[in-house]
Amino acid sequence: MTDSVETVDVSLRKAVDDSYRITVGPALLERAAGLLQDRKLPKRVAIVSDTGVYPLYGQTLRRALEAGGYEVAAEAVFEAGEASKTRTTKAWIEDRLLDARLGRDAWIAALGGGVVGDMAGFVAATYLRGIPFVQFPTTLLAMVDSSVGGKTGLDTPHGKNLVGAFWQPRAVIADVGLLGSLPADQFLAGLAESVKHAVIADAELFAFMRVEWERILARDPGVLQVLVARNCAIKARVVEQDEREGDLRKILNYGHTLGHAVETAADYAELHGMCVALGMIYEGRLAERLGLWSSGERQEVEAFLRQAGYPAVDTLAADSEILIRLTQADKKAREGKVEYVLPQRLGAMHRGERGYGVRVDDAEVLAVLREIRGR
Amino acid sequence: MTDSVETVDVSLRKAVDDSYRITVGPALLERAAGLLQDRKLPKRVAIVSDTGVYPLYGQTLRRALEAGGYEVAAEAVFEAGEASKTRTTKAWIEDRLLDARLGRDAWIAALGGGVVGDMAGFVAATYLRGIPFVQFPTTLLAMVDSSVGGKTGLDTPHGKNLVGAFWQPRAVIADVGLLGSLPADQFLAGLAESVKHAVIADAELFAFMRVEWERILARDPGVLQVLVARNCAIKARVVEQDEREGDLRKILNYGHTLGHAVETAADYAELHGMCVALGMIYEGRLAERLGLWSSGERQEVEAFLRQAGYPAVDTLAADSEILIRLTQADKKAREGKVEYVLPQRLGAMHRGERGYGVRVDDAEVLAVLREIRGR
Repeated sequence: MTDSVETVDVSLRKAVDDSYRITVGPALLERAAGLLQDRKLPKRVAIVSDTGVYPLYGQTLRRALEAGGYEVAAEAVFEAGEASKTRTTKAWIEDRLLDARLGRDAWIAALGGGVVGDMAGFVAATYLRGIPFVQFPTTLLAMVDSSVGGKTGLDTPHGKNLVGAFWQPRAVIADVGLLGSLPADQFLAGLAESVKHAVIADAELFAFMRVEWERILARDPGVLQVLVARNCAIKARVVEQDEREGDLRKILNYGHTLGHAVETAADYAELHGMCVALGMIYEGRLAERLGLWSSGERQEVEAFLRQAGYPAVDTLAADSEILIRLTQADKKAREGKVEYVLPQRLGAMHRGERGYGVRVDDAEVLAVLREIRGR
Repeated sequence: MTDSVETVDVSLRKAVDDSYRITVGPALLERAAGLLQDRKLPKRVAIVSDTGVYPLYGQTLRRALEAGGYEVAAEAVFEAGEASKTRTTKAWIEDRLLDARLGRDAWIAALGGGVVGDMAGFVAATYLRGIPFVQFPTTLLAMVDSSVGGKTGLDTPHGKNLVGAFWQPRAVIADVGLLGSLPADQFLAGLAESVKHAVIADAELFAFMRVEWERILARDPGVLQVLVARNCAIKARVVEQDEREGDLRKILNYGHTLGHAVETAADYAELHGMCVALGMIYEGRLAERLGLWSSGERQEVEAFLRQAGYPAVDTLAADSEILIRLTQADKKAREGKVEYVLPQRLGAMHRGERGYGVRVDDAEVLAVLREIRGR
């Protein structure tokens, strides 16, 4: 008898529906309550925001929610900036919610850019083992990228986004009217992710951006509405097919492997989007060198990026070998070779036998970097 | 145009299969690798344990995993005890895993009692946004209760289990041979949850425990195997039907509302299981007073608990009013009235119009407490 075992099978098969709606338009903060009506959110809500955004839009959102019958039971406003994306900030936000005796019948309104969305989403994912949250992105980067996809998390001294959860928002409300107050460099940086979406999945979006560039920079609400919605749709289609980082979702990393190396070498003093733009230039050249992408299209994208005002080359003193070393620390490195996703043509990424990831010898990358950077 | 909005629907409907197997038997640690063979776990593993358990069984598990081809890339052994269930310990464990460069292609082996399972599971839920974990419970309480169900989390100064996640293990391996080393009071405390399972769902289990009580206390491996497996099956059936705390899962809280009040009043100096046993006695009387449970069955269970060696009444100096006040802080309080789950007959809980929760006036509870406690 003592050698036999007993087994109990726990059967947890289920159908999950985490679907949600992204609404894009002007003056949406004021209409928040109406837009959330069918989302079955509880009455009590906590607003999580940062010191850059809350003074501008906090009261607007608060009043809109209260007018719609919600009770704003807590507000947690932390210091703006990536440096706040820590365990300490998470604990501080949680304690504000606990102080207010927020129970499971409550939700979180995340009002801000990527850092606020990541932090508020992660708090929502683990507060009392999970409560709903809604994204109110206030930067272009958050609207076209980070508020869609369900990735939440924080940085640790070991690196970025190392602790977190996949937790989908109940809704994303992108008020393009808020983009008027965004500093020019942040706005341009956010547009880099839009160019990325165009290159990886939507040649028409690329044409649209080229034609409408002046009106985009002038922050014409009508054009921004179209632009943001189109970007959300691209990201949504990718996330729908690959929610938890299987293969397809990798294409969203275009420009990010070398971009992230530049960002790290610059000690995060450069805006993420600017580094991604550089990464797209470098990785585009790599795609051409490997014979995956035509020289003509590669040049077309690069020329557009330069005209748009992105730097054509980083200003780091670091030798290219250093950037190579930084790519090796990348989460995406496999068996010593670093994995890239590379364009095949404008709007479509190369897909090999193993999927979208292309393992590239460091020597090839080094050659490209030395050619562009001259060091 | 500026008054119109654009919407993008993100469709995230999917079928999820979080099913897993619980294996119960003697000498299972040594056979861990074989038992995990079909679980598709990656090669690299981190063992998370505490200073009470690791010295006894850590090396056995480590050797068994290594013999099966796994690479034990990290070990995180924290100070034993509920006081370790903190954000600080979570961060410390994560940093050990990050130091060892553990990537997403890794899993966590949780070796210990409830605290280890809760902490290791919560780390697994959020490390790089989630990696697999396996429970190796070493206490009776963990085997019959906390290792099954997917609840993970930690305590904060505001209270217990306030931050956490639902994260299902890939497998639970309950080696009943380990129970031989458990202190007698911990063993008895763990059995309280087994009595609870019997009362809420399984009259036959109650009969079995009564008949086999001596052999249970003697820790006969064959009897313990049957006992643990039966308890896991009960918990599994409840969790299968109600994974995330809808209605049915409430029945697992029998004895826990007043039990938790006693535990809090005693400042956690009493073992959880002992408080639950007291809670079952108090709440059993409440069920009788409210006309839900027959006096005969209520007395039968109470007599068994007393003979089994559980205290019949708490030794707290606190007036019963204080216990009432502590129940009001309970997560389960609704609109001022505290919600209880109460037996209808041995093996079946009362279910009303609103479900299993019964909202009870404080005056009724106070009357019961004063009758038993005389203060």
